[in-house]
Amino acid sequence: MAFDAIETPFGKVDQIVGGSGTYVAYAASNFINDIKQISIIGYDFPQEELAALTKLGVSLEGVEVVADKKSFFWSGRYHLDMNNRDTLVTDLNVLADFNPAVPDSYQGAAFLMLGNLSPAIQLSVIKQLKERPKLIAMDTMNFWMDIAMDELKVVLKEIDVLIINDGEARQLSGEFSLVKAAKKILDMGPKFLVIKKGEHGALLFHGNQVFFAPALPLEEVFDPTGAGDTFAGGFIGYLAKTGDISFENMKTAIIVGSALASFCVEKFGPNRMKEITKEDIDMRLAEFVQLVNFDIKLV
Amino acid sequence: MAFDAIETPFGKVDQIVGGSGTYVAYAASNFINDIKQISIIGYDFPQEELAALTKLGVSLEGVEVVADKKSFFWSGRYHLDMNNRDTLVTDLNVLADFNPAVPDSYQGAAFLMLGNLSPAIQLSVIKQLKERPKLIAMDTMNFWMDIAMDELKVVLKEIDVLIINDGEARQLSGEFSLVKAAKKILDMGPKFLVIKKGEHGALLFHGNQVFFAPALPLEEVFDPTGAGDTFAGGFIGYLAKTGDISFENMKTAIIVGSALASFCVEKFGPNRMKEITKEDIDMRLAEFVQLVNFDIKLV
Repeated sequence: MAFDAIETPFGKVDQIVGGSGTYVAYAASNFINDIKQISIIGYDFPQEELAALTKLGVSLEGVEVVADKKSFFWSGRYHLDMNNRDTLVTDLNVLADFNPAVPDSYQGAAFLMLGNLSPAIQLSVIKQLKERPKLIAMDTMNFWMDIAMDELKVVLKEIDVLIINDGEARQLSGEFSLVKAAKKILDMGPKFLVIKKGEHGALLFHGNQVFFAPALPLEEVFDPTGAGDTFAGGFIGYLAKTGDISFENMKTAIIVGSALASFCVEKFGPNRMKEITKEDIDMRLAEFVQLVNFDIKLV
Repeated sequence: MAFDAIETPFGKVDQIVGGSGTYVAYAASNFINDIKQISIIGYDFPQEELAALTKLGVSLEGVEVVADKKSFFWSGRYHLDMNNRDTLVTDLNVLADFNPAVPDSYQGAAFLMLGNLSPAIQLSVIKQLKERPKLIAMDTMNFWMDIAMDELKVVLKEIDVLIINDGEARQLSGEFSLVKAAKKILDMGPKFLVIKKGEHGALLFHGNQVFFAPALPLEEVFDPTGAGDTFAGGFIGYLAKTGDISFENMKTAIIVGSALASFCVEKFGPNRMKEITKEDIDMRLAEFVQLVNFDIKLV
């Protein structure tokens, strides 16, 4: 949970709440209302933002508040091709000392989503859970591959679903072909691999099976910040609601994640995620069905 | 119909038959056997290549053979990212004088596929047909947008389906967003627009409707030469076989085109297209169904 400053071709915002946990919670709250958040924030994090999450059923007992430090801050700029961005500022602030303690009331969680953070912290959270969750999903990024690959590989052996983008999959595996990359990564531990390709959709790999979910073609991507985390939150939220972790149900979960991500990019930060209703989501899911549905008679 | 020299990270070939018409004919011949080819070749075009096409039901009456000139020659190099390529040599040879005369026996053709060539030649073929085909599809490229945009816009008013790639759609429309680009291009004349995105699949636009077909995730793209023409050939071949030019049937036609293109890239030039059977195609179409099929219960 953090602050972002964002500049896109369509406008800029100097300070808006963000952070992986914020987006995951907003997205998952469309499906479940007993989300247990783990994060760290500073004295500057707005009370009304915390209240908004609490109202959605997000427990904040695991969110440490540091009285004399600022929240993590990231500033970035997007260009017309929204698949790439420049990082302008990264102020770790409270995140420099983050050593999460999982509250007792969080024990027994069936679904664990590990946002992008150091592999050591991700592993610490897994180890603190007395009962292994039914499903552990995680995100990571090239930065950890550069500086903590050995630790990352240890965490990969503990999880079920890895969610990364195409560039990260290539770096992690050393393979350019995403199909070859997926094979290598699935050998590193995860039983499922989701490769996100931004506006080009997402692939789900499991054993020799593969599923493809498109991104919804949009007139305008206003701000892609948080879209990946929103995707992950929709994915795990849907799985948690249905309790079904089969490959077949994960296909649907990926469509759900894509649908939620398509909302996220419509406004700055998590603003759009705060507005959407069940009816909005159902309508968009129907658009996805139309987008990929075809009738094949083998010829 | 032409010669290509191709270099990819996986190997090279100094001379292999190619050209838009060759790929379209091979792909469409999987569905129909009364293809009427229009092209121009030199004295050097191999007789056995012509015989192979004739055997598939491709009429070559409209293929002009120039006795004292060489066939068109293109040489290019691909890198690991197969979405881009460097053109090393372009020798127009016979193509410099191409002024096609549509044979009488070609009159009454119901489906016309115009490969990438100057808009003036494409228009000439349309005008020579006494009865307007049921469906006219065409390909073009950035080169013609650079040097013959006005003529291109005239042809666009005469056709039903435009098949171009994402970069070309952006150039033609002046819009970065493919959704906005599609709206502008559909206003220029075509009733249907196919935007090819290489390994990222293809989009079909018609009015306010949109359909997305993924590319099959492949371990290796050995040689992408001709994949776009193969896609177009499979697309129009399937439409010609079924005789149904509805948006719904075009969705299937695009999946068929994608399936055929996924074969094309497996070997140099059209080599793989010469081998595949109906069973191969049916199996691959079943893979596409698996790739995108999901069960949605609105949540």
